[in-house]
Amino acid sequence: MAIKYELIKECKQTGARLGKLHTPRGVIETPIFMPVGTQATVKTMTPEELKEIKSQIILSNTYHLYLRPGHKLIENAGGLHKFMNWDGPILTDSGGFQVFSLGDLRKISEEGVEFRSHLDGSKHFISPEKAVEIQNSLGSDIMMVFDECAPYPAEKQYVKNSLERTTRWAKRCKDAHKNTDKQALFGIIQGGMYEDLRKQSLEELIELDFPGYAVGGLSVGEPKPLMYEVLEYTTPFMPKNKPRYLMGVGSPDCLIEGAIRGIDMFDCVLPSRIGRNGTAMTSVGKIVIKNSAHTEAFDALDPECSCYTCKNYSRAYLRHLFKANEVLGLRLLTYHNLHFLLKLMEEVRQAIREDRLLDYRNEFFKKYGYE
Amino acid sequence: MAIKYELIKECKQTGARLGKLHTPRGVIETPIFMPVGTQATVKTMTPEELKEIKSQIILSNTYHLYLRPGHKLIENAGGLHKFMNWDGPILTDSGGFQVFSLGDLRKISEEGVEFRSHLDGSKHFISPEKAVEIQNSLGSDIMMVFDECAPYPAEKQYVKNSLERTTRWAKRCKDAHKNTDKQALFGIIQGGMYEDLRKQSLEELIELDFPGYAVGGLSVGEPKPLMYEVLEYTTPFMPKNKPRYLMGVGSPDCLIEGAIRGIDMFDCVLPSRIGRNGTAMTSVGKIVIKNSAHTEAFDALDPECSCYTCKNYSRAYLRHLFKANEVLGLRLLTYHNLHFLLKLMEEVRQAIREDRLLDYRNEFFKKYGYE
Ligand SMILES: [Zn+2]
Ligand SMILES: [Zn+2]
Repeated sequence: MAIKYELIKECKQTGARLGKLHTPRGVIETPIFMPVGTQATVKTMTPEELKEIKSQIILSNTYHLYLRPGHKLIENAGGLHKFMNWDGPILTDSGGFQVFSLGDLRKISEEGVEFRSHLDGSKHFISPEKAVEIQNSLGSDIMMVFDECAPYPAEKQYVKNSLERTTRWAKRCKDAHKNTDKQALFGIIQGGMYEDLRKQSLEELIELDFPGYAVGGLSVGEPKPLMYEVLEYTTPFMPKNKPRYLMGVGSPDCLIEGAIRGIDMFDCVLPSRIGRNGTAMTSVGKIVIKNSAHTEAFDALDPECSCYTCKNYSRAYLRHLFKANEVLGLRLLTYHNLHFLLKLMEEVRQAIREDRLLDYRNEFFKKYGYE
Repeated sequence: MAIKYELIKECKQTGARLGKLHTPRGVIETPIFMPVGTQATVKTMTPEELKEIKSQIILSNTYHLYLRPGHKLIENAGGLHKFMNWDGPILTDSGGFQVFSLGDLRKISEEGVEFRSHLDGSKHFISPEKAVEIQNSLGSDIMMVFDECAPYPAEKQYVKNSLERTTRWAKRCKDAHKNTDKQALFGIIQGGMYEDLRKQSLEELIELDFPGYAVGGLSVGEPKPLMYEVLEYTTPFMPKNKPRYLMGVGSPDCLIEGAIRGIDMFDCVLPSRIGRNGTAMTSVGKIVIKNSAHTEAFDALDPECSCYTCKNYSRAYLRHLFKANEVLGLRLLTYHNLHFLLKLMEEVRQAIREDRLLDYRNEFFKKYGYE
C-alpha cells in the first residue's frame, strides 16, 4: 500500500477529523489545503518557497501535463517530482474534470473521451486506462480515477448515468494501475445533489476498496449551503480509515465548513489566481491591493500575518508593484494567499485538537466578514 | 563625503583597476555590474535573491519613480531602500537619459526639459534642481547629475552644445544637492565620439570636483570598437582616486573591455530583459531556451554554473516553463543571467588581482564564441 491514513482524533464540538496521511514522500497532517501546480509549477512560486509556507503536498494536472510537455517526456526526465524539483508528495487529478469542461471540444463514449486540445486543436482520446498510464508516467504519490463529473444543475437520470459510468471507469482504472505500492489511486464519489445517488456511488466505490476517496461533482456552481448538505449525507458513510478529499474547494469558509463535515484534503486554484489578480485574503477579509485606499498605506498587507510578504513590504509598495505590472507583485500576493490558507488549516487542526472547531469557525467568520 | 574610492591595484597586463568603493551602506568591490531595478524592483527578483547572487549595489530610475509612485510617496515611506526592502547601496540615474529618449514628447531649454509622461500623457518639467530634489527624496547612495546625452551620430556642434549645457547643469545640480554627507553626486562626462570634446567635458567637470564620474553618451548605437576608442582617450584623464562608471553597458564583452579600459562600474537592463525573453548567457555563449533542441535536454542550462537555476532545473523544464508562459521561467532565467554577470565580474576582479585580465579576456571570448 502506497499510503496509510491515521485518524488521530475527532473534534468533540464538530466531529472534524485530525489525522496523518503517511505517503511515500512524507507524512501529511490533515485537514490540509493543497496548492495547485497545474503546469508542473505552482504559479510564480519555487518549491523552496512552497516549503517555507509549509505546503505539505501539491496538486498537478494530468490533462495539462499530458498535452504539454507530455507525460513521456516527464517520465524520461525521471518523473514529475524530479522534473519540477519538488520532493514532497504530489497528487494528480485524472484529467476528467478538465476534459469534461471542454464543452463542444469533447465527445464522451463508454470507452472514454475524445477531445481537441485547447492549445492547438489537435485530437486526443483519454480512456480510464490512458488516464492511469499518464499518471503512472508522472509518478504522482496520489492518483485519481478518471470520472465523469455531472454539471450543476443536472437531471437525476443524467447524474445516475454519470455516476454509474464513473464506477465502471473506476474499476477499469484500478485494473490498469500497475504501481500500487508507490502510487495510491483514489476513487471519486459522484451523484450530484441527490442523496440516494451519492449513497449508490459510495456503496459501489467502497466495494472497489480504494485507499482514499474524493467527493467530486461539488463546487461546480451550486450554492454553498447545498454543497454543505451534500457533504452531510455523504461523508458519514465514507470509510473512517481512509482519507477524504473535497475537490476544487479553496475559499476560507468552505475549507472550515468542509473540515467540520469530515473532509481531510482540499485543493483549489483560488488563492493563487486571486493573488495574481491583486486580491489578498487577510485576517479581516479580502483586500483589493490596487484600490486607492492603499496608496500611502505603509503598514503590512495583514498586520496579523507573519509571512515573508507581510514582514517585509507595505501595502503601498504592493500596490505600486501591481500598478506597474511588476512580476514581484504577483509573487508576493500569491505567497501571502497560499500562506494564509495553509496557516488557516494549521489553526483548524489546532482547533480540532482542542475540541473547539465550531468556536474557531465562528470567531474566524466574524472577523473575516462572512455572513 | 558620502563615498570613498580605494584603488587596490592595477592589472599589470591591462591597467584595469581593482578597487573598493566605500558607501554609507557597505563596501562595493569593483569592477562591478549593477542590476537594474527600474520601478523599485529588479524585475522578477526579491532583494534576498539579489543578495544570494551577490549583488553589491543596484540601480533604480528617477524618471520612472518620479512618475509612479512619485518621489514624495517614497520619501514618506522612509526612502527607496525601505520602500523596496533593499538595504544595500542604490544608485539612481537622473532621469535625463529617459527624458531625452521621449523624442517628440519632450522640449529642451536651458532651464530644463518639459515632457509628457509615457504613462498618461500628463505634462511635467524636470530641471537639474528638480532631478536632485527627486533623488534626495529617494535617498539613493549615489545620485547622478541631470545631463543631456547627445544621440549617435550627432554633429560636432550639437555635441559641443550638449556637453557645455551638461556642465552648466552639473553645476546647478551640485548647488542644489542638500545631502552631501549621505548621498554622493556623480558628474557625467559627455562629448560624444569627439576626442577634444571628451577632454573639454572632463576638464570642466573635474573642475567641479564630484566624488565620482560617469562616462555618458556611449552605448547609444555606436559600434563597439568606437565605444572602446572613446574610453581609451577618456578614462586615462579621469581622476584616479574616484570611481568611474560606464552607463548602460552590460554585455559580457563590453564589461570585460570596459574594465580593461579602467571602468569600475556598469549597469544595464540587458541580462534581465533577455532572460525574460528566454535567452540565457552561458559559459559557451547564448542559449535560446524555447529552441526545440532543448525539448528533452535534461541537463543544466549551464553545466559550469553553480546558481540556483542550474543546480535544480533542466533545460527541458525551463523550456516547458517558457512554452507554458509560466512566471517561474522568467524568474529562473533572470536569476541565472544576473548571476552570470556578477560571477563574470568576480572573475574579472580575480584576473586583475593576478595580473592576467588580458589572458582571461581571450579565454572567455573564445569559449563564449565572440569574434
Ligand atoms: Zn502575509
Ligand atoms: Zn545558472
